[in-house]
Amino acid sequence: MGQAVTLRQVAAHAGVSRQTVSNVLNAPQRVDPVTLRKVQAAIEALGYQPNRTARSLATRQAGLIGYCLARMPGRSLFMDPFLHTLTEAIEETGRRMLVFTAPEGAQGIETYADLIAQRAVDAFILSDTVDEDPRHTWLASRGVPFASFGRTWPKQGEQPGPWVDVDGAGACAELVRRLHSAGHDQIAFVGWCQRVTMGAAKDRQRGWQDECARLGLSEQAAYADSDSMDGAARAAATLLDGPTPPTAIVAASDLLAVGVLGELRRRKLRPGHDVWVTGFDDSVLATSVEGGLTSVRQPTEEITSALVRLLDAEHGESGVLLAGQIVCRSSAPVDL
Amino acid sequence: MGQAVTLRQVAAHAGVSRQTVSNVLNAPQRVDPVTLRKVQAAIEALGYQPNRTARSLATRQAGLIGYCLARMPGRSLFMDPFLHTLTEAIEETGRRMLVFTAPEGAQGIETYADLIAQRAVDAFILSDTVDEDPRHTWLASRGVPFASFGRTWPKQGEQPGPWVDVDGAGACAELVRRLHSAGHDQIAFVGWCQRVTMGAAKDRQRGWQDECARLGLSEQAAYADSDSMDGAARAAATLLDGPTPPTAIVAASDLLAVGVLGELRRRKLRPGHDVWVTGFDDSVLATSVEGGLTSVRQPTEEITSALVRLLDAEHGESGVLLAGQIVCRSSAPVDL
Repeated sequence: MGQAVTLRQVAAHAGVSRQTVSNVLNAPQRVDPVTLRKVQAAIEALGYQPNRTARSLATRQAGLIGYCLARMPGRSLFMDPFLHTLTEAIEETGRRMLVFTAPEGAQGIETYADLIAQRAVDAFILSDTVDEDPRHTWLASRGVPFASFGRTWPKQGEQPGPWVDVDGAGACAELVRRLHSAGHDQIAFVGWCQRVTMGAAKDRQRGWQDECARLGLSEQAAYADSDSMDGAARAAATLLDGPTPPTAIVAASDLLAVGVLGELRRRKLRPGHDVWVTGFDDSVLATSVEGGLTSVRQPTEEITSALVRLLDAEHGESGVLLAGQIVCRSSAPVDL
Repeated sequence: MGQAVTLRQVAAHAGVSRQTVSNVLNAPQRVDPVTLRKVQAAIEALGYQPNRTARSLATRQAGLIGYCLARMPGRSLFMDPFLHTLTEAIEETGRRMLVFTAPEGAQGIETYADLIAQRAVDAFILSDTVDEDPRHTWLASRGVPFASFGRTWPKQGEQPGPWVDVDGAGACAELVRRLHSAGHDQIAFVGWCQRVTMGAAKDRQRGWQDECARLGLSEQAAYADSDSMDGAARAAATLLDGPTPPTAIVAASDLLAVGVLGELRRRKLRPGHDVWVTGFDDSVLATSVEGGLTSVRQPTEEITSALVRLLDAEHGESGVLLAGQIVCRSSAPVDL
């Protein structure tokens, strides 16, 4: 994984743009001879192997990959930088990215059906996956190629198609272990409102819960009544007003964690001293708060390169689980 | 503007998805008779006039509009929600959105040339416009349709094509007027590093500067040495350590304003009391800080609908300047 020489590396080596390398491969007649030789030398020096799919597309209009833009303000902190990296990864294979909007859930299937009927796209990258997401089984049953960022958490059976995910349970369990090592034994969880049916939310909570159980710690959780900072502040208030106020709070996202920090400030409690707080996503919010927010970074480049690899895999690799990286800041100094 | 009935309104009136309305218009044979009648009744009731372009596209593959994804972490706070709204507006006209990445500046032209040569797109929406942006004149000279979010600020002459922009100068002048009315006479500006050649940055600064001059106020400005909160904090420190420390700071973006707030906290200065601070964009950051950040909201829906209208205009309307809306929070209680 990540070992193969990429078109980007060839471009950097030759000191030209990725598009120029693509032109050398697909339309050498359009490239001036000096540049052509320079790029060919770079290809040879690095042992670059053009992607099979990219080559097969060289002779016709570039294939289009469909990607649905979700409207979820809180989550977009991670998902939008992700789109840029994903688009680059798709372009490296000689294809292009079509973005579209669709209603959530089963209602959205109509949009996917239209894109297929119009031959507007060749395949889909799915993200913002929810529990028992209807898109995956629908696409799989029609033989439409796709790769999913996020699992669909079916009640039974296997994931309905290739997927890449970040091990949210693993990262949250690791946060609990580190907080416990630092002396905490009241480690609460603040999650999204119960309405949210996103597997990733439950996955993160499960990691916290299982590790608390393993360590014999109490398990207090509270939920934001909306996916907002204010909702998270109210959830934190409930916990802090309870009979055994937590000394550490693991939040399911940076947005929720910033809401928790706001509630601490209102109570003159110092993050990282009186109460330790962690987020998830390592978004721009994590560095926007005083002293910074300890968070979990998702490996964007690895996620997108795995998605593109799975899109072209022929019944080989079917799932890739990547580790999140804990980034320590002063809201929870859990460096080991 | 905004008066015409939209496909979205028809969909809401009929209680169906936008895609279903689109099907009724373009492929009625695919719609069940009950739904067909319901949608036709809604079209009649509202007096909906299907878009000319959308109708002409009904008989062939939907046209594609190209949009370049910029990699600018700070700016993406506004630009990414913008992409969702823009994609919806494009889809309302029966077309779809192709996103791509390209190097900044003149180097990126090659990518635009390829998209045109491959007939991958019919037109472009440009954003993240910089001073004397090479893309506009290049596209205009080749007769490629485009509409630009942001002006290109040519040293002389007119904007090289249709544009929509938010009046950053007007909004910042209004902030200065309100701060002055509230008793401030040391109103400083914190801008992006000088490297940033974005017209919007200078536009915002010009509004602050002209209004300070008009009111006879001193004009102190400092610049973040990178587009980061830390850079803005250092810029604020320079101002606060100067001979006449400001009592109010107008920052060119929310990200910069949050950096300024961090520096105030370090000095135990209270935002909205000791020093008033304003941002720009009304992003998620503006509500993530304690008490909230006074900021300027850009009217996303109006921007995107104007862009789509200009894309199809035939030498009529050529520029649309929209007002930003000041949103007051406790960092600068400038409510009138």
